[in-house]
Amino acid sequence: MASPKLAPDWDIAQWFNVDAPLDLRALRGRVVVAGAFQMLCPGCVSQTIPQLRQAHALFPESEVAVIGLHTVFEHHAAMGPTALEAFLHEYQVRFPVGVDRTSGRGEPIPSTMRRYGMQGTPTLLLIDREGRLRRQTFGHIPDLQLGAEIMALMREPANIDAVSTDDRQRRNPQAKCDADGCAIPNESE
Amino acid sequence: MASPKLAPDWDIAQWFNVDAPLDLRALRGRVVVAGAFQMLCPGCVSQTIPQLRQAHALFPESEVAVIGLHTVFEHHAAMGPTALEAFLHEYQVRFPVGVDRTSGRGEPIPSTMRRYGMQGTPTLLLIDREGRLRRQTFGHIPDLQLGAEIMALMREPANIDAVSTDDRQRRNPQAKCDADGCAIPNESE
Amino acid sequence: MASPKLAPDWDIAQWFNVDAPLDLRALRGRVVVAGAFQMLCPGCVSQTIPQLRQAHALFPESEVAVIGLHTVFEHHAAMGPTALEAFLHEYQVRFPVGVDRTSGRGEPIPSTMRRYGMQGTPTLLLIDREGRLRRQTFGHIPDLQLGAEIMALMREPANIDAVSTDDRQRRNPQAKCDADGCAIPNESE
Amino acid sequence: MASPKLAPDWDIAQWFNVDAPLDLRALRGRVVVAGAFQMLCPGCVSQTIPQLRQAHALFPESEVAVIGLHTVFEHHAAMGPTALEAFLHEYQVRFPVGVDRTSGRGEPIPSTMRRYGMQGTPTLLLIDREGRLRRQTFGHIPDLQLGAEIMALMREPANIDAVSTDDRQRRNPQAKCDADGCAIPNESE
Repeated sequence: MASPKLAPDWDIAQWFNVDAPLDLRALRGRVVVAGAFQMLCPGCVSQTIPQLRQAHALFPESEVAVIGLHTVFEHHAAMGPTALEAFLHEYQVRFPVGVDRTSGRGEPIPSTMRRYGMQGTPTLLLIDREGRLRRQTFGHIPDLQLGAEIMALMREPANIDAVSTDDRQRRNPQAKCDADGCAIPNESE
Repeated sequence: MASPKLAPDWDIAQWFNVDAPLDLRALRGRVVVAGAFQMLCPGCVSQTIPQLRQAHALFPESEVAVIGLHTVFEHHAAMGPTALEAFLHEYQVRFPVGVDRTSGRGEPIPSTMRRYGMQGTPTLLLIDREGRLRRQTFGHIPDLQLGAEIMALMREPANIDAVSTDDRQRRNPQAKCDADGCAIPNESE
Repeated sequence: MASPKLAPDWDIAQWFNVDAPLDLRALRGRVVVAGAFQMLCPGCVSQTIPQLRQAHALFPESEVAVIGLHTVFEHHAAMGPTALEAFLHEYQVRFPVGVDRTSGRGEPIPSTMRRYGMQGTPTLLLIDREGRLRRQTFGHIPDLQLGAEIMALMREPANIDAVSTDDRQRRNPQAKCDADGCAIPNESE
Repeated sequence: MASPKLAPDWDIAQWFNVDAPLDLRALRGRVVVAGAFQMLCPGCVSQTIPQLRQAHALFPESEVAVIGLHTVFEHHAAMGPTALEAFLHEYQVRFPVGVDRTSGRGEPIPSTMRRYGMQGTPTLLLIDREGRLRRQTFGHIPDLQLGAEIMALMREPANIDAVSTDDRQRRNPQAKCDADGCAIPNESE
């Protein structure tokens, strides 16, 4: 079986809800759940945003990075950074959101969307601790399945050599979901 | 009991989904169901817009005018006419929508909202065939109740003297809901 | 247009939530909203029962009689009166429910269901103040439409001559929906 | 930390949707997701049954056993085996369901329910490959969390010595969720 490839770097013009840019290298060691959305895409608003918000609340940030990618490919004037900021405020989105960079030369599809060959919004990306793209799906995935897939990736050992020292500290193997969350004591501990 | 007052005129800067402005005088003779909303208000998007869309599909336009009022009182830069137009397109809103006029002098509450003393969005207005405000409610009303109240107003006779000739033609007492709609044969026919 | 016919009498073996049997004659003067259901029919449980419960809460009982008809045509042993009583308790059904009578001679379709020629459950019946069947629909009707149709029937004048004195008292034209309900003051009062 | 205890044996009077009784010993080597419900418990019907049905469709049966336990502690006459059989048919429940045994001596709480000290229905049980009770929760757990917890248990190695030969064959470590399911290729393969 062909090995999964490294996820392409994303190309972000502006970040919300973070102190510093979150490139994929900085996320090594953590599972990444990224949802590409548009703030005026009805299915994204009714399904993807609540699902990402729930994942962000459930899994420990030291283990799972939940990220929104605002991949605008239509109605650009209506969905600029000012509009997005208001949207994130009104929908109480607290997880990091990056704005996919537009070329500005009449190309409607933004940069990250093109690199990944996304078909539209919403698109869900799952990236493992070593930075490899393990799922890319256009449309909605049921919560039960997403929960299972995130945990499967959480339970994979990362290749330590491929991970920087900083990342190793961030990836705390003792970390568990919180009291209301998904903490199942691991017998091997 | 005090009689209901005439509904204040609304003050609309721009209309969508209509050929000509829809002032209240032009709507005399019809029942008016107006929903004041903001395109980035989550409850408006998940409840009010679908409810107005359903009312628009159910009742005959000659009898019931379903209208959206975009009453922006926060995040003005994010919800301008261009953004609204994209929103209406993405959410497949086909009923008339008017943009409540802002004063532009640092007053965040737009004109119509102030005239009615609305407390926020969503706000539902029901106006009878003679132009009187019969309900103004901040928040959501169940579909069953709204359907009943619209029909109650439909079944009230308009004071013919108060209605212009044009309006009288528009208000066709024989008009019924369509085949999938609410047509109950009236025994008096 | 052919006039609507009188609704056939229903044939009820046992009533719940009432002091005395509710035959159609006793209901003259009121609008009747009757939902034929089976307690193990998933669509009835998820849609019809909540809709009837909401109608029962919204409209005044002196004007609108909301009634459930337990029309069992399959799994008879599982849906007898004892099971139904438990169901009504668990689902907090407070409106009157009549058990459609079975012939007991190997005929699975109960009596009322046959008289009306119902195709299955749920089936919604709307009967006007004079006892005429104005709607019979197999399946679900949206709340907005049902609310409108109930109100349309409420606003029809009953033929007084056809209504008994007792019924005339019950049909109080001043009655309104309650405070949370659908009371729109009628200008003609 | 105290080790989780072995799950108590359950005490089943009758099974549906299986060829042979499913005692916990026979399930060793598999993760067990058991939902205790009553067919006339509204929350069980609207949330637990759909969740179990979805889990049954998503995870491979060789890895995860999804089981319903009909733990009737009220309205016993209404929820006997005949009624349950009709319920399972109408709600299209295909996973195994066991009827918790009643003592019949005026004790309303059935046997398994007492052994586990359940507080009511619905109650969710998660049992690991070695038969230990890892979660017992009265009420509903979100799908995202349940998916994560099931996968966490799937990814735990079973203590081979504690598992019989038959179970070892059943517990196929190569087994994956199906095409629509949760198959994430494991890098260690």
